[in-house]
Amino acid sequence: MFNEEQRLANPIRWAMVGGGRGSEIGHAHRAAAARDQLFTLCAGCFDINPARNRDFAANLQLDSDRCYSDYQQMFDAEAKRKDGIQAVSVATPNGTHFAICSAALTAGLHVICEKPVTFTVSESEQLKKMALQQKKIFAVMYGYSGYQTVHQARAMIARGDIGKVRVVNMSFAHGFHNTAIEEHSPGAKWRMNPEISGPSYVLGDLGTHVFYLASLMTDLKVKQLCCMRQSFIESRAPLEDNAHVMLKYHSGAVGTLWASSVNAGSMHRQIVRVVGEKGSIEWWDERPNQLLLEMQGQPAQTLERGMNYLVNDIEAISCNRIGGGHPEGFFESWANLYHRYAIAMQAMDSANTETLDNLWYPDIDAGIEGVRLLECCVESADNQSTWVNF
Amino acid sequence: MFNEEQRLANPIRWAMVGGGRGSEIGHAHRAAAARDQLFTLCAGCFDINPARNRDFAANLQLDSDRCYSDYQQMFDAEAKRKDGIQAVSVATPNGTHFAICSAALTAGLHVICEKPVTFTVSESEQLKKMALQQKKIFAVMYGYSGYQTVHQARAMIARGDIGKVRVVNMSFAHGFHNTAIEEHSPGAKWRMNPEISGPSYVLGDLGTHVFYLASLMTDLKVKQLCCMRQSFIESRAPLEDNAHVMLKYHSGAVGTLWASSVNAGSMHRQIVRVVGEKGSIEWWDERPNQLLLEMQGQPAQTLERGMNYLVNDIEAISCNRIGGGHPEGFFESWANLYHRYAIAMQAMDSANTETLDNLWYPDIDAGIEGVRLLECCVESADNQSTWVNF
Amino acid sequence: MFNEEQRLANPIRWAMVGGGRGSEIGHAHRAAAARDQLFTLCAGCFDINPARNRDFAANLQLDSDRCYSDYQQMFDAEAKRKDGIQAVSVATPNGTHFAICSAALTAGLHVICEKPVTFTVSESEQLKKMALQQKKIFAVMYGYSGYQTVHQARAMIARGDIGKVRVVNMSFAHGFHNTAIEEHSPGAKWRMNPEISGPSYVLGDLGTHVFYLASLMTDLKVKQLCCMRQSFIESRAPLEDNAHVMLKYHSGAVGTLWASSVNAGSMHRQIVRVVGEKGSIEWWDERPNQLLLEMQGQPAQTLERGMNYLVNDIEAISCNRIGGGHPEGFFESWANLYHRYAIAMQAMDSANTETLDNLWYPDIDAGIEGVRLLECCVESADNQSTWVNF
Amino acid sequence: MFNEEQRLANPIRWAMVGGGRGSEIGHAHRAAAARDQLFTLCAGCFDINPARNRDFAANLQLDSDRCYSDYQQMFDAEAKRKDGIQAVSVATPNGTHFAICSAALTAGLHVICEKPVTFTVSESEQLKKMALQQKKIFAVMYGYSGYQTVHQARAMIARGDIGKVRVVNMSFAHGFHNTAIEEHSPGAKWRMNPEISGPSYVLGDLGTHVFYLASLMTDLKVKQLCCMRQSFIESRAPLEDNAHVMLKYHSGAVGTLWASSVNAGSMHRQIVRVVGEKGSIEWWDERPNQLLLEMQGQPAQTLERGMNYLVNDIEAISCNRIGGGHPEGFFESWANLYHRYAIAMQAMDSANTETLDNLWYPDIDAGIEGVRLLECCVESADNQSTWVNF
Repeated sequence: MFNEEQRLANPIRWAMVGGGRGSEIGHAHRAAAARDQLFTLCAGCFDINPARNRDFAANLQLDSDRCYSDYQQMFDAEAKRKDGIQAVSVATPNGTHFAICSAALTAGLHVICEKPVTFTVSESEQLKKMALQQKKIFAVMYGYSGYQTVHQARAMIARGDIGKVRVVNMSFAHGFHNTAIEEHSPGAKWRMNPEISGPSYVLGDLGTHVFYLASLMTDLKVKQLCCMRQSFIESRAPLEDNAHVMLKYHSGAVGTLWASSVNAGSMHRQIVRVVGEKGSIEWWDERPNQLLLEMQGQPAQTLERGMNYLVNDIEAISCNRIGGGHPEGFFESWANLYHRYAIAMQAMDSANTETLDNLWYPDIDAGIEGVRLLECCVESADNQSTWVNF
Repeated sequence: MFNEEQRLANPIRWAMVGGGRGSEIGHAHRAAAARDQLFTLCAGCFDINPARNRDFAANLQLDSDRCYSDYQQMFDAEAKRKDGIQAVSVATPNGTHFAICSAALTAGLHVICEKPVTFTVSESEQLKKMALQQKKIFAVMYGYSGYQTVHQARAMIARGDIGKVRVVNMSFAHGFHNTAIEEHSPGAKWRMNPEISGPSYVLGDLGTHVFYLASLMTDLKVKQLCCMRQSFIESRAPLEDNAHVMLKYHSGAVGTLWASSVNAGSMHRQIVRVVGEKGSIEWWDERPNQLLLEMQGQPAQTLERGMNYLVNDIEAISCNRIGGGHPEGFFESWANLYHRYAIAMQAMDSANTETLDNLWYPDIDAGIEGVRLLECCVESADNQSTWVNF
Repeated sequence: MFNEEQRLANPIRWAMVGGGRGSEIGHAHRAAAARDQLFTLCAGCFDINPARNRDFAANLQLDSDRCYSDYQQMFDAEAKRKDGIQAVSVATPNGTHFAICSAALTAGLHVICEKPVTFTVSESEQLKKMALQQKKIFAVMYGYSGYQTVHQARAMIARGDIGKVRVVNMSFAHGFHNTAIEEHSPGAKWRMNPEISGPSYVLGDLGTHVFYLASLMTDLKVKQLCCMRQSFIESRAPLEDNAHVMLKYHSGAVGTLWASSVNAGSMHRQIVRVVGEKGSIEWWDERPNQLLLEMQGQPAQTLERGMNYLVNDIEAISCNRIGGGHPEGFFESWANLYHRYAIAMQAMDSANTETLDNLWYPDIDAGIEGVRLLECCVESADNQSTWVNF
Repeated sequence: MFNEEQRLANPIRWAMVGGGRGSEIGHAHRAAAARDQLFTLCAGCFDINPARNRDFAANLQLDSDRCYSDYQQMFDAEAKRKDGIQAVSVATPNGTHFAICSAALTAGLHVICEKPVTFTVSESEQLKKMALQQKKIFAVMYGYSGYQTVHQARAMIARGDIGKVRVVNMSFAHGFHNTAIEEHSPGAKWRMNPEISGPSYVLGDLGTHVFYLASLMTDLKVKQLCCMRQSFIESRAPLEDNAHVMLKYHSGAVGTLWASSVNAGSMHRQIVRVVGEKGSIEWWDERPNQLLLEMQGQPAQTLERGMNYLVNDIEAISCNRIGGGHPEGFFESWANLYHRYAIAMQAMDSANTETLDNLWYPDIDAGIEGVRLLECCVESADNQSTWVNF
């Protein structure tokens, strides 16, 4: 059970780059960081519009001299303060991640970065190297990975409940961009621009999420994949708004992945189904308090978060904030991640290797694998959908 | 859309009575109050065990001199401080509500009280009178009433979408107490003790919730009811662990209510179905991001929180913290209520009648009607299930 | 598994009264009787309109001289033939059942009658007496009782899977008559006419079905009940289009029943939930291939028709016509009943007591209890909803 | 609405090859053919075991001299009778289809054949040519294509309800063969034997079904596909027990298909989701009375069979045997097909071109396309999963 008494003697002094007024994801970061009182928002450059930036920061009751117009200025200024920030969350468009994260690490800050981390695997690996050198945490905001049921699925699969994994079906396929909504929506517009968004749209924006969740649940490693992608709204080309991937894992298992923003009428359809020799587990982000367990030869079972029959898995159980039956949701998943980030940062700063070694959180390696997925998918798709090695 | 920039210049200084270590509901109050940074926990007497009380408060980083062993002591001491508390939440067993709330109001505090507010309607009405005299807010923690879909249902019914209401089906029927769990669970034990719990168990603990939700959605007033109640675990007598009620409303509509803790295997089953002349709406607390709308002669529809097709209802829309598809849950419902409590308290203290007049929150009148439900149900059930006037 | 090789040396010569052109229920009887080639349609008076009657019979390829304009004429004429009918199904409006069934029994025929059998318990008991004297089968067409999952539920409850039954929830509440559809629909019109329909509408037309199913599943006997009924379409008074019943069983269990034709937007909602000490079973006629099993402390289970994990119950298993996963439906339920009727009739005619003693089918006793439900509900409802003994 | 009065003056004299005792599919053919009294079972060779064949035929009350030990013998003998058979259904293992169907057509019989029709496209095309020459109906038993909701989906898509189709997701993935069940099950055993089953297992046994349904709903033509297939139970190699296919259609739409018998714990999961520009339609064979319609920007809708709001499509509406709410199932789907087969056969024999031109049923062209799917998938899969032209 989640223990609200687990406070830090000194909450982590924290800032944001991006995520200003009108950004849902910005609010999600702040709500998650504040939730357990382990982070204090001390500084920020939230918006490229200076007036809006200042106004927004003022409304959040930030000291006006800690609202910065530029991330580099912020890192420099904060580094000079005794009470300067210790960590930063980067919630800006993809194309800026590498520069901002590099600067943050250089400034000696822990980093929490949105996905996909960078445009290329090589850039992500540089960030990893810098974080190692600086002895700083580099977390990647795979925000769905804080759901307890994801960890239940992982624990059950690890325990062998469904036997050796044979097939993994992944989908994250919404319908909100079935028309050229980007003509009117700034949040959609940059995602369709390869200079800002990178080499892919839905594979990066959606596919990396569900790919990470499935990797987490199954611990499988991809060997080869084959991808086809389309721009059903033609003006989006070369970026895809729909993609299908077939994957072969080193273990002999196979998988499929569907990423789409033109799955008209669908909400999220972020679903992972893992088929093992003896049974299957299915997780759906729109019903995150339930897990479907289908054991061959037995009735299908609906497992509920918070119940005693679940695996006594530390990652899952420690996230349990309220009794079963009461729905937990998106904000709890994010808060569960920020909770771990705080513990990781504190452990890193105090060189507490034991804690670090036993702590899971979505780290830069998870970020790298997401970028690798993009690279390989784009290579395959743009090469007549041939098979490529992962 | 929820606006996180709506901060108070000075967050409300707030305390709790009850809700200490191990209390889920205590954590829910604190998480909800802290969520939007509108309340600051300044004081508390959380636990009747002095050592545990102190330890718990310390872990919450409360000043040790503001952790009190007794609510009266707290109210007295805080009244003498310049930075003394302005509001208190009461999360203690039912039998203590009247005394604590009376003392809080006398001390000039706003009150947020768990339900059922008191044992008798007469006591609740006294609290209402005191609150009026003291010009203080008295809120009742009907925690499910902060769900956006409850307000969507209310707005749709008020707009006439389903026509005049004919039938209301209410249930809150879980199965967690199908055996004498109270022998080992302190949280269950007091609920089965009439001296602490009052004249009923499930009608008060569960029935009042769903009754309030249905009242809120439909604005119907009960005329008469007929109740049967049972103690399937015999040691619980005279308190019931299962009850069924038939209701007649003044409008000519009729209703049924099922409250149970022995509905073995069920999670919550807190469901309200409102049947109108033209269609029906169904709300279920375990799937609070969805509403079922069934219009006669049309396909059944699943409405999703956060979508543009919903009624542009201020209570519902202002609660929308993240885009549709992402599940919100129990903690958002509570936070949405605490958000309103803060606005109400500030408006009351600044004599802002206009705000108060246009603000909905579950108030003492809602509390009184809940207690009236209990009184009438018990009167009926203990009188051979005859019909009684409400 | 159903065995199609179980043919009769001589299929039963069979006729219908009512159920002509445009009658859904007429088609259901014929489809069910023909399904397993145990009955041969030899005669009939299907329609009160003579021309339509003849035309319809001709299209069904019936000999023209065995199409009768009147049931009495049919019984008389057929009795004189060597190859005369042995059994008759009565699918006429309620008010004619008693006379037709009496005449059929007097003519030495087995009878399959629609429900409610008669207007009064006393009439039904007379039919029972006549059937006993004539040594003829009197079956009542509770058409949903042939579903395998109903028998699975019965077998599981009988085996003690859910422990002693505490609560039974019954509903059959559709929305198709939310407006005065009877002004244009002959099939609806007679059901609203007390002279033809009898003392109730939805309690008789719908309530008796779900009441029988729950009786079959639980084997509980009602001690007392309390009913309220309404005519939301006022022109239907005194017949109700909505009714709620609370029931007390001799065993100490309690129940509720909702019968309605104004549950706007709903298809059938014919659901039986049986709550036992240890778990609950839920059956829904719109998903008859599944059963919901909820054991306290375990994940909810969805049992599928046709699977090996089910109880090896003869009534259920012998009905299994195709492998699990393939949906069976309404027509299989009816055919499963007609299959039993044929076996019963053959056994009765050959005085095979052993077969009769071990054969379940919905018989006249089931019919009587349905009429008793109506009588008691109407007595209660028309008496200010007081409690009446069953 | 289905009209039971549509009888044939002379029901079609009909026989079966295969489908004897213990065969589920044999029973399905007989139940479907007998359902509307349009076919009369006159002859058969049901079983290769002579004694069992005779015993089975006798129990079905077939004349003993019309129970044959061999299909050729049957075709020869029946051809000499005045009342000889007019049509035959072939329900034998795949490897025998070509020879039996050729012989049947040669003997001047209409043919109803199980799928996949043959091992190769070339053989299927020969059968087509023979049927044309003989002026006989050649129907293929895609038994799921008689569901009304399949035709509703087709009609809605044809009307443009969801706009131009972009993505088609197909799956038929059960879990019943997750272990080497064929060691004990004769019905499974031949399916794993390439000499009897042909070049594929699940693609032929399952994939052809869902591929046909999607073709029927969308009228899309495949341009290219890429397939990977596995034998998770190694002894099944070279036949696959799991396969994934990516497809490109000529229209620019794309698709995926998953066929599996190792999807442990799953019943059928035969699902077709068609995504158009404006919305999506989803059909699931385990819930065939419902269709999911998701229009972008609107609440998801559940369409129910038998309701007035459905498209007035002749194929769908004419199949409606009972009012909405009552579940129809597998046997109705098959009977709806046999109904069409009878009409087609009669029209062919009477050279009624107009009827034939306006009548849909799954014909030899549908059969050819199914075999083509197999050929292409196997070619792709066995060639390192390269893309092949369809």
